[in-house]
Amino acid sequence: MPTMNRQWILARRPVGEIAAGDLELREAPIPEPGDGEFLARTIYLSLDPTNRIWMSDQDQYMPPVELGEVMRGGTLSVVERSRHPDFKPGDIVSGVAGWQDYALAHIAQKLPAHRSLPLPAYMSVLGMTGATAYFGLLDIGKPKAGETLVVSAAAGAVGSIVGQIGKLKGCRVVGIAGSDEKCRHVVNDFGFDACLNYKHANFAQELARACPDGIDIDFENVGGSILDDILARINLKARIVLCGLIATYNAKGPVPGPYNFAQLLMKRAHLEGFIIIDYLPRLAEFWQEMPGWVEDGHIKYDVTIRRGLEQAPEALKLLFTGGNTGKLLLQLSDEP
Amino acid sequence: MPTMNRQWILARRPVGEIAAGDLELREAPIPEPGDGEFLARTIYLSLDPTNRIWMSDQDQYMPPVELGEVMRGGTLSVVERSRHPDFKPGDIVSGVAGWQDYALAHIAQKLPAHRSLPLPAYMSVLGMTGATAYFGLLDIGKPKAGETLVVSAAAGAVGSIVGQIGKLKGCRVVGIAGSDEKCRHVVNDFGFDACLNYKHANFAQELARACPDGIDIDFENVGGSILDDILARINLKARIVLCGLIATYNAKGPVPGPYNFAQLLMKRAHLEGFIIIDYLPRLAEFWQEMPGWVEDGHIKYDVTIRRGLEQAPEALKLLFTGGNTGKLLLQLSDEP
Repeated sequence: MPTMNRQWILARRPVGEIAAGDLELREAPIPEPGDGEFLARTIYLSLDPTNRIWMSDQDQYMPPVELGEVMRGGTLSVVERSRHPDFKPGDIVSGVAGWQDYALAHIAQKLPAHRSLPLPAYMSVLGMTGATAYFGLLDIGKPKAGETLVVSAAAGAVGSIVGQIGKLKGCRVVGIAGSDEKCRHVVNDFGFDACLNYKHANFAQELARACPDGIDIDFENVGGSILDDILARINLKARIVLCGLIATYNAKGPVPGPYNFAQLLMKRAHLEGFIIIDYLPRLAEFWQEMPGWVEDGHIKYDVTIRRGLEQAPEALKLLFTGGNTGKLLLQLSDEP
Repeated sequence: MPTMNRQWILARRPVGEIAAGDLELREAPIPEPGDGEFLARTIYLSLDPTNRIWMSDQDQYMPPVELGEVMRGGTLSVVERSRHPDFKPGDIVSGVAGWQDYALAHIAQKLPAHRSLPLPAYMSVLGMTGATAYFGLLDIGKPKAGETLVVSAAAGAVGSIVGQIGKLKGCRVVGIAGSDEKCRHVVNDFGFDACLNYKHANFAQELARACPDGIDIDFENVGGSILDDILARINLKARIVLCGLIATYNAKGPVPGPYNFAQLLMKRAHLEGFIIIDYLPRLAEFWQEMPGWVEDGHIKYDVTIRRGLEQAPEALKLLFTGGNTGKLLLQLSDEP
């Protein structure tokens, strides 16, 4: 077993896109677990748009990562050494061990020992990503059969699941993605009724045509001009699940809100910010329903896996350049 | 009795502020009621920010006024001639008779024959204005004792009532208005805990000081930079009652939404567009509660009355220049 741990440290807050030198890869000795602790080796690191938010010193839903700290990130790990009564070597745990090969912990979520799906499923459709789609759509979006649901970043980790749950609930589901190829993937593999490439010059017209009865629910992952085109088409009492605003996370200065903001008033829409951490006490509901949907094939999932901790900053950028589909994971070490 | 009726016609859609020639005052014969109709003489015409919206050919909550039509407006009238079994001369009715001296109608809301309050009360605190404050705050704002409620346009018809209901519910109530004099009025006469002049250069700092525990509810009547300063201070799970955006109604082009839009996500806020027409089926709740609050002095109201139909366009502008406090009415003829 190696003796040194590699860690990505937040050295400087990015201005706009992440630049060389914002994060620094350092080495430190692998620590020994103290009493009540265990040492886990990370297998998969979750790369998420919210990682970029955590790097900024802005008002946000948890404290930003401090300069000099290991970058924060969700992880799936295997316990290697333990002085904790509930965790033994070989246990697979999910947690927030950060951008490093090894981490000490005294608490984590243990995966069931008998698993019907491969490990990456627990970092995507059965993990926080799937739970985000599940609670965001069902609890705030409140889909009803026959309604029209629009999902931005439809080929992404959350969007692809949202649309499929929408189909299960009887909605007409229209995805939005950044390439024709992604759109074909969304329709052919995830079963959306339609998917539109927002880079088309006539996107607003295409959206109007794809939503002939207007838009009842918008599951919003992107923001920016796409959101404006959506707001222009919302129906009375529309619900906007505000889950992400990735179009703005790399902004260097203040970003205006949607120009069609007044539509929220005119259409008496309900817009609600959604972050999965508020729903952790209700995860049991998700665990009861989602695994069955995946096992019986109603919900498909897609994972893009890159390899090597040293790739973390470059891999994260894929989320902002449209370089991945489905859940983006970085594999740091082999599955046991 | 005169034979001619005066009517303000929408001749041209305003671009920006209402200009001479957008509305034209014309004369037409006073019509005779047909079978099932009655003729009413308008006593009070309600002037509201939403009148400006109705003049624009934009996406809105009801059809815009057509060019060549009598301008739409809420009214309190007295029946003069009737061929309707339920309405007799002398009845006082509220309705939407528009910007004219006389109008025919076949339906209207009859005021109770025995009234404890003067007629302008039925066009303000006991009318749509009061109902807007009541349902918007209670149904969407959901105030709880000890929470901080911020109300923009606090000296206005809706805002002044919202804040007083907030006090009844045990909130700390902070108003926002456009002059120091209005702010004194809001605190001294309506009992708000504080009121801030948004024209002060350090308004954002004053807002932060006045809301040391953050903002739980924003009853939004204004929009623009004031809303941004509010969003910067909202608490987790804040409620934004989006009731009006008067700062933008005279805009000549697209207006950006709030720059702090992402705060709605970070703080998992609930923003909902509110227009009183959705609550008309529930007016009985309001009628059951509000008159008592006014009679026992818990809710005070304020009315600015101008006189003369010919003044309508100029009087409406007062709402956009901060020239009135409380409910703005135009008196067209004498009370019976």
